[in-house]
Amino acid sequence: MPVIKTILCLVVSGVVLSGSAVFAQTESEPSLQDQARFYFDVIPDQVPRQELVDHFEEKVALGQRLFFDPRLSLSQTVSCHSCHNLSLGGDDGRSVSVGHGWQTGPRNAPTVFNSVLQIAQFWDGRARDLIEQAGAPMTSPVEMASTDPMICDVLSSMPDYVEWFSRAFPDRNNPICFATTRHALAAFVSTLLTPDAPFDCYLQGQQSALTRVQKEGLRQFITLGCTQCHMSTNLGGNSYYRFGVKHEPEQRYRPVADLGRRQVMETIREDYVFKVPTLRNVALTAPYFHSGSAWTLEEAVEVMAWVQLDKKLNPTQVDSLVLFMDSLTGIRPTVTLPLLPASTPQTPHPSY
Amino acid sequence: MPVIKTILCLVVSGVVLSGSAVFAQTESEPSLQDQARFYFDVIPDQVPRQELVDHFEEKVALGQRLFFDPRLSLSQTVSCHSCHNLSLGGDDGRSVSVGHGWQTGPRNAPTVFNSVLQIAQFWDGRARDLIEQAGAPMTSPVEMASTDPMICDVLSSMPDYVEWFSRAFPDRNNPICFATTRHALAAFVSTLLTPDAPFDCYLQGQQSALTRVQKEGLRQFITLGCTQCHMSTNLGGNSYYRFGVKHEPEQRYRPVADLGRRQVMETIREDYVFKVPTLRNVALTAPYFHSGSAWTLEEAVEVMAWVQLDKKLNPTQVDSLVLFMDSLTGIRPTVTLPLLPASTPQTPHPSY
Repeated sequence: MPVIKTILCLVVSGVVLSGSAVFAQTESEPSLQDQARFYFDVIPDQVPRQELVDHFEEKVALGQRLFFDPRLSLSQTVSCHSCHNLSLGGDDGRSVSVGHGWQTGPRNAPTVFNSVLQIAQFWDGRARDLIEQAGAPMTSPVEMASTDPMICDVLSSMPDYVEWFSRAFPDRNNPICFATTRHALAAFVSTLLTPDAPFDCYLQGQQSALTRVQKEGLRQFITLGCTQCHMSTNLGGNSYYRFGVKHEPEQRYRPVADLGRRQVMETIREDYVFKVPTLRNVALTAPYFHSGSAWTLEEAVEVMAWVQLDKKLNPTQVDSLVLFMDSLTGIRPTVTLPLLPASTPQTPHPSY
Repeated sequence: MPVIKTILCLVVSGVVLSGSAVFAQTESEPSLQDQARFYFDVIPDQVPRQELVDHFEEKVALGQRLFFDPRLSLSQTVSCHSCHNLSLGGDDGRSVSVGHGWQTGPRNAPTVFNSVLQIAQFWDGRARDLIEQAGAPMTSPVEMASTDPMICDVLSSMPDYVEWFSRAFPDRNNPICFATTRHALAAFVSTLLTPDAPFDCYLQGQQSALTRVQKEGLRQFITLGCTQCHMSTNLGGNSYYRFGVKHEPEQRYRPVADLGRRQVMETIREDYVFKVPTLRNVALTAPYFHSGSAWTLEEAVEVMAWVQLDKKLNPTQVDSLVLFMDSLTGIRPTVTLPLLPASTPQTPHPSY
């Protein structure tokens, strides 16, 4: 959350920050739009400046080709796009993904859209950034099932890739390696922003961008305290919370065996802590939760209100919240399918 | 083969047609370019006129969406694009495709590029046209594993598809059905032409479009008799021949159990008859044969010369033929990834 904006907002409204109900109980109540601007930020339509490394355009162009190339997997069947489908919500619409040998993964595939705006990657935040993230699915035995050396062998076997890597990493002696592959993929994924959602237009001053019911949903969202976790640009993605703060979720929503962040961070003493998922484009990314077990937004909203906030919502509240969340659907990027080079006699054969 | 051109060519050259050696043994030998024009035609850059049905553009736009939508499969994982990858050679680069439940199909996936120019579809020609073809993979248990009613349920559940089908099939009472789905897919696939290969430029008069060795390869191609099967616009795709005219191919190339066209046509009395595959973009579509068993063009060329033509080629001949085939790679279409609508609560869930 931008600090300066927060301070300004507090000064203007003349109130003291106290949890999520900061604005709700004051005499001189700020407008809903001001409240929204306090909690949320507009999705940028440009890649964040800190991502703009040297030869960024060349890295993006290369990363786009890699993203769609199934030959990064052992079977040469599974690409990044298989589970992070850019025609859909940047995910795959399944509870859990299907990977090598038709094996299923343990968690719901998160969207790649706006993922660069998160503090970390994966449901448990175990990857610091997109560069670290990009390596895991390629070498996971249940996903793409390849290996570092095999990926290098595959890419080095095609002269076009040799040229594209050289252009994207001109300072490297051996431009094609697992690290550069991850860097290029991360550069491409960092461009996958979805600006100009109705909610962004509203944040920027366009009152009519939200319907009356959507505004009521936004008010509920703030008043109920959803903003404690789902805040900032991505309405999530910037903090970790236990799934089950007030009540234990049913096992179908929170399978017993998946302890979340505790499995990967020694310092976490609590079970079932996960990164708060973004609500950006949430209307495109059913099913919900790390378990992919809630198939409608209505169901997800009711469950979350109960287990996180100890609130039983009435149908009107649920409806307005869901309609508000519809306003979080941005403009998905227009992506041209890359033309990939043919395999050569040096390219390892697919194995399946 | 265009009849008028054929007759003209015969008159001009003053020879009588006699197998593939028609030009090779005459005194006043026509130029290599004339010979090539006798056997082959330029790939059109426009969809053939007979394909241009009513509301063609709307059908193409819809078909493009369907082509990329994995929700046409039971698992909502496999799309047309999975095995007919437009980033690659319009195929999948595997011996046989991987489909539902990681099952493998019996034959190598053929390219969709220029497939509209073939006399029939599938290796055994069992589908009369692309409309008939499009239905089979969607409902094959080892490919997309869906059913007619499920596909209609999936598509009817999304308002955007309802609108798109209405626009593409405005005269239908129920625009969304299995037949219209197939028609739209066929319309899109009919646009996937790859014009302007070096060989097309050569056919159109540009002598320098082929290198000296490629011209030697073309000469070999004609002299050896490859043109008996691989002729016309697609250098194939317009006739059926036994795989093993002169010699029985090794079992790895021609598995005993796959009898080819005989399995689907009662009138075929001979085993191992297949549709002659196109050689267009053949450098992009390894591995080769219906069995997907030859991983290099060199290997495929040597095998074909022996089993079909009783010829043992020397390495120079093989090299020039392969280099000639490189000249058959056209310009693949630029395809924008379609943006697909979100599933709704009415959309059947994926099953896997």
